[in-house]
Amino acid sequence: MTQQASLGVAVLGTGMMGADHVRRIDEVISGAHVAAVMDIDADRAHKLAGGLPGCTAHTEPSAALAAPGVGAVLIASPGPAHEAALVEALERDLPVLCEKPLTPDPDSALRVLETEQKLGRRRIQVGFMRRFDSEFTQLRQLLAGGTLGRTLLLHCRHRNVRVHDYFTNEMLINDSVVHEMDTARWLLDEEITAVTVVRPRRSSLAPEGLDDPQVVLFETAGGAVVTVEMFATSGFGYQVQAEAVCERGTARIGEGHGMLVNSGARWGGEIPQDFLARFTDAYDREVQQWVTAARGGVPTGPSAWDGYAAAAVCAAGVEAQATGRRTEVEMIERPGFYA
Amino acid sequence: MTQQASLGVAVLGTGMMGADHVRRIDEVISGAHVAAVMDIDADRAHKLAGGLPGCTAHTEPSAALAAPGVGAVLIASPGPAHEAALVEALERDLPVLCEKPLTPDPDSALRVLETEQKLGRRRIQVGFMRRFDSEFTQLRQLLAGGTLGRTLLLHCRHRNVRVHDYFTNEMLINDSVVHEMDTARWLLDEEITAVTVVRPRRSSLAPEGLDDPQVVLFETAGGAVVTVEMFATSGFGYQVQAEAVCERGTARIGEGHGMLVNSGARWGGEIPQDFLARFTDAYDREVQQWVTAARGGVPTGPSAWDGYAAAAVCAAGVEAQATGRRTEVEMIERPGFYA
Amino acid sequence: MTQQASLGVAVLGTGMMGADHVRRIDEVISGAHVAAVMDIDADRAHKLAGGLPGCTAHTEPSAALAAPGVGAVLIASPGPAHEAALVEALERDLPVLCEKPLTPDPDSALRVLETEQKLGRRRIQVGFMRRFDSEFTQLRQLLAGGTLGRTLLLHCRHRNVRVHDYFTNEMLINDSVVHEMDTARWLLDEEITAVTVVRPRRSSLAPEGLDDPQVVLFETAGGAVVTVEMFATSGFGYQVQAEAVCERGTARIGEGHGMLVNSGARWGGEIPQDFLARFTDAYDREVQQWVTAARGGVPTGPSAWDGYAAAAVCAAGVEAQATGRRTEVEMIERPGFYA
Amino acid sequence: MTQQASLGVAVLGTGMMGADHVRRIDEVISGAHVAAVMDIDADRAHKLAGGLPGCTAHTEPSAALAAPGVGAVLIASPGPAHEAALVEALERDLPVLCEKPLTPDPDSALRVLETEQKLGRRRIQVGFMRRFDSEFTQLRQLLAGGTLGRTLLLHCRHRNVRVHDYFTNEMLINDSVVHEMDTARWLLDEEITAVTVVRPRRSSLAPEGLDDPQVVLFETAGGAVVTVEMFATSGFGYQVQAEAVCERGTARIGEGHGMLVNSGARWGGEIPQDFLARFTDAYDREVQQWVTAARGGVPTGPSAWDGYAAAAVCAAGVEAQATGRRTEVEMIERPGFYA
Repeated sequence: MTQQASLGVAVLGTGMMGADHVRRIDEVISGAHVAAVMDIDADRAHKLAGGLPGCTAHTEPSAALAAPGVGAVLIASPGPAHEAALVEALERDLPVLCEKPLTPDPDSALRVLETEQKLGRRRIQVGFMRRFDSEFTQLRQLLAGGTLGRTLLLHCRHRNVRVHDYFTNEMLINDSVVHEMDTARWLLDEEITAVTVVRPRRSSLAPEGLDDPQVVLFETAGGAVVTVEMFATSGFGYQVQAEAVCERGTARIGEGHGMLVNSGARWGGEIPQDFLARFTDAYDREVQQWVTAARGGVPTGPSAWDGYAAAAVCAAGVEAQATGRRTEVEMIERPGFYA
Repeated sequence: MTQQASLGVAVLGTGMMGADHVRRIDEVISGAHVAAVMDIDADRAHKLAGGLPGCTAHTEPSAALAAPGVGAVLIASPGPAHEAALVEALERDLPVLCEKPLTPDPDSALRVLETEQKLGRRRIQVGFMRRFDSEFTQLRQLLAGGTLGRTLLLHCRHRNVRVHDYFTNEMLINDSVVHEMDTARWLLDEEITAVTVVRPRRSSLAPEGLDDPQVVLFETAGGAVVTVEMFATSGFGYQVQAEAVCERGTARIGEGHGMLVNSGARWGGEIPQDFLARFTDAYDREVQQWVTAARGGVPTGPSAWDGYAAAAVCAAGVEAQATGRRTEVEMIERPGFYA
Repeated sequence: MTQQASLGVAVLGTGMMGADHVRRIDEVISGAHVAAVMDIDADRAHKLAGGLPGCTAHTEPSAALAAPGVGAVLIASPGPAHEAALVEALERDLPVLCEKPLTPDPDSALRVLETEQKLGRRRIQVGFMRRFDSEFTQLRQLLAGGTLGRTLLLHCRHRNVRVHDYFTNEMLINDSVVHEMDTARWLLDEEITAVTVVRPRRSSLAPEGLDDPQVVLFETAGGAVVTVEMFATSGFGYQVQAEAVCERGTARIGEGHGMLVNSGARWGGEIPQDFLARFTDAYDREVQQWVTAARGGVPTGPSAWDGYAAAAVCAAGVEAQATGRRTEVEMIERPGFYA
Repeated sequence: MTQQASLGVAVLGTGMMGADHVRRIDEVISGAHVAAVMDIDADRAHKLAGGLPGCTAHTEPSAALAAPGVGAVLIASPGPAHEAALVEALERDLPVLCEKPLTPDPDSALRVLETEQKLGRRRIQVGFMRRFDSEFTQLRQLLAGGTLGRTLLLHCRHRNVRVHDYFTNEMLINDSVVHEMDTARWLLDEEITAVTVVRPRRSSLAPEGLDDPQVVLFETAGGAVVTVEMFATSGFGYQVQAEAVCERGTARIGEGHGMLVNSGARWGGEIPQDFLARFTDAYDREVQQWVTAARGGVPTGPSAWDGYAAAAVCAAGVEAQATGRRTEVEMIERPGFYA
């Protein structure tokens, strides 16, 4: 692997996720270094670059992509900025790891797909990091192996401690449930064809204007049903759990009960409080595998198609949420390029 | 308590449940004995009575109720026979423990309610035994105590190993999901107002004509949502689980992991295979408390109203299942008598 | 079973255990009633008897045993009073359920054994209630079944919340570890041949003069080793756990994790605070089985031999504790009568 | 961190552990590369070096240490070869990560300590990887935090699936229980002062000449007691568990129950089969932290003193095993250098 030189990565966007990826590339994983950072906040970009030898700071994506030593791009900027950055990276034929969403809506995602197809080979990986979590991987292998028969139902729980006051019902679908959309598509290896949203009475602890929790149902092309409990203001912890119900058994992941303490008339333990803590290893593995694949040539993780499909299901989900009705997902046929 | 003489119980119906109750009254609980047994199969009735001192055998409910020493009735005959037996028991002013269903439909249940109200005091207890299970009781106390805030969602799992070949989609609602209907009403202390049934692809191991598993959603008067996974042919075990999602936390019961064995590269244990094994203690407690209350005067367990409500929700459930649509529950207003 | 009349039980000693057994016989189990109660505190005896129809109150064991309707004896008085009561019960040929200890020392236990043997049939059952706990029973069946091969090690945990200020090191052996002595003998089906006591630094929360916790090791006739953690002042709960380590696997019981609550950044649940809560079902089953067996004739539970063996191992344990040395157990050969 | 150039590591010994470390440095961690490999098997060394750009192959430790670009040493050769390699590394003032044991006996370990002290600064880290496992780290933080009071007891389980036929009783102490020796010293922050070994009947599945399982007891300077179940031929899996019993509660790690499967009348999951699977993350973290520290200057992990202490406790353990007696540990006073 180290036959080739270290991969120089341009990181676009240096907020929480971007900064964490910079740290990861610099201190944790093998075979890559941060060659350029870009942020619209020039100070932040310069401060970050200052701690990294040979790293340049930029306020424009195109400048970062053109910086010396850049051989790959990691996009961690806000969603609306993704399309332009993706297209420019494709034009430069650079491997891309794009934090979700690929783009904020199905139409822009389609444009990205078309650009990539013209290139003739896959260049884009989308940051659905759960696919790199060891328990999710284990569950997928079990389901794919077929010993439990076909999967009929998939129950998901997605609980956050809290959300910002500006968090909306639409964001609940687009930013949170989007993970279950990808997880379900990947675990079941089927597209989602319809979405229904059921809203119970809202928690009095949710911010004004947010109906939390919500129950989201997916139907898949093959007739499986997915139930999602999305609870963004659970107060107690970050929990991501899944249970597949199959013809010959069930399998459940995400309990994550580490150290058990008996004390003061209670048994139990701590619940992780944020997604970085819960999925640290998955992020490390995701970026390492992307770097390794990028140096070899072709990305192997979730593709631009997966990003487009998520956008299409999100659009149906937001409509289902607004209307209270079962809403069918509208998607183009999958191009052979993404088979 | 033993100030009074032992309570003589007439057991109507001596199938699996009836025979088990006879054993329970005879060998397990305190303060009662089996004074009469009735079954349309005279041989079975006589055989059972033969092993019980002073117990008479009958083929007619009325004869069993009129037998010497009978002070209470336990109805374990098929559902269609319940109404007549209940009415006759009420006419004789006998305390009744009636296995579910109270009666097979809301109209007949209503007639029973009216008869009982004329009597001026409660006489009927319906056999929803989960209310006597220690974990369900613990969960209800926790929710009622309010430390977790209001309950917003309730997730239920109900899994059987297998069902008979003649099991139908309607029976899935009326015989199986009916338990979740009562459990949800009791845990949340609210009536169910609408039912939706979602059918995923069916297990290839389910009997012809049965769509199994199914997902059933309840909405309650206060806006809580209940999700039920009903899987009658899970193949692996009998599991009844519930998780309440509240404003300040969640609580889950029914894992029931007893002895843990490490062997042959696996950790784990056995899953109970039938409901008698899982709920033995609940049945014991149910019948004991009914006997104790019957000797004292008034039953304290689930009332005829609970039986009627279950019938009304079942009717909506069967319609929802047939139409694929959200179906509102039609119920009379709760009489003050059952407040 | 109910061919015979209800069994009249004389309960000797009406402290916490005795009163609980009175309640059990009166309200919970089948086939027996309390015919007489005896306590050196006449007021307490009369108060208790007053609530039980036909029950007489006494201050002398012999009077209680001679009371009308008494057909069996339950001894729940302090240990030093056991020998006299046992001998008198044997003289009257009454079935006995004797709370542990059988007697406080091996010599007096031997005298009881001799008296029972002269009677020509077993009359005594000793109150080692763990043998009636469903998990312990399950573990024993697994070990006896042999699928895991021979048992090589048995790890036990015995934790109390707290003890009285007058609790001594000797009581730690005689009153607490005695349960593990019986459990180990019964699970492994072998006698204990040597005891070693290891004392770590004492908890600063233990009462003056009590070295708590302690580690006690048993060796069995067949060479198995048993490790016991005895922690009488754990502060957090009552826990009784056991793990058998066999040639082909291990099996563990006593985790007892019922309802799981997520709240305030923690997952977990409650730990029972006392042995009555933990072993309620075992006590119910113990007394019910004793009553049923007593009506049939011969007790089937732990015998006077088990009581003697426990006394002999306790004697070795107390010596081992005092000397800090491995101490061999001195016992007579097991009479064929108790084979 | 990447201010400095990548650290060139010479890996001595390319057996299972050495080869795994080579892969780790090459593909997983950040900031280092393999500059030289050494093995007495020249073919193996050359084959491994062939896949690593700029890496040279050697059959002598001194040649590997002198190879161009070598800035640190990782010793994964057999224990008897450690002393010479350590001394040579110290002479060259190179940071060392030495797989356990430091050396095979206390005397040789002492000589290494003396050499390192003459150097005036710590250069050696010993490969006790459990200190880098997230659960062990969590347990240590809890104990050090003091909320549970002082630790009185520590129970350890160490189970392997199987061992080679040539595995001996001494190796059980020196190669296996040595991990608990370090774990106990580190968790309790106290030296071990005495060791006792108890041998139950041996498993009929253990290789000829190996008494397996064994129970090992440690006493610490402060009076804590550690119980270790060492079972090298458990057959079912690799398990490393620990439970600390403190004045105000207990804490337990190592259950490691990931995905839960219900199937075929059983609930449960898989047990890892080897230590590399169980401790992969710990190894990654250990080597990453060592590399990061080595580039900064001073190692922060387990020191040569920890290696010496383990050797001293092992020597006592082997004697205790042979004699069946409690054996006190002989150690020099801890030099201020290692405070």
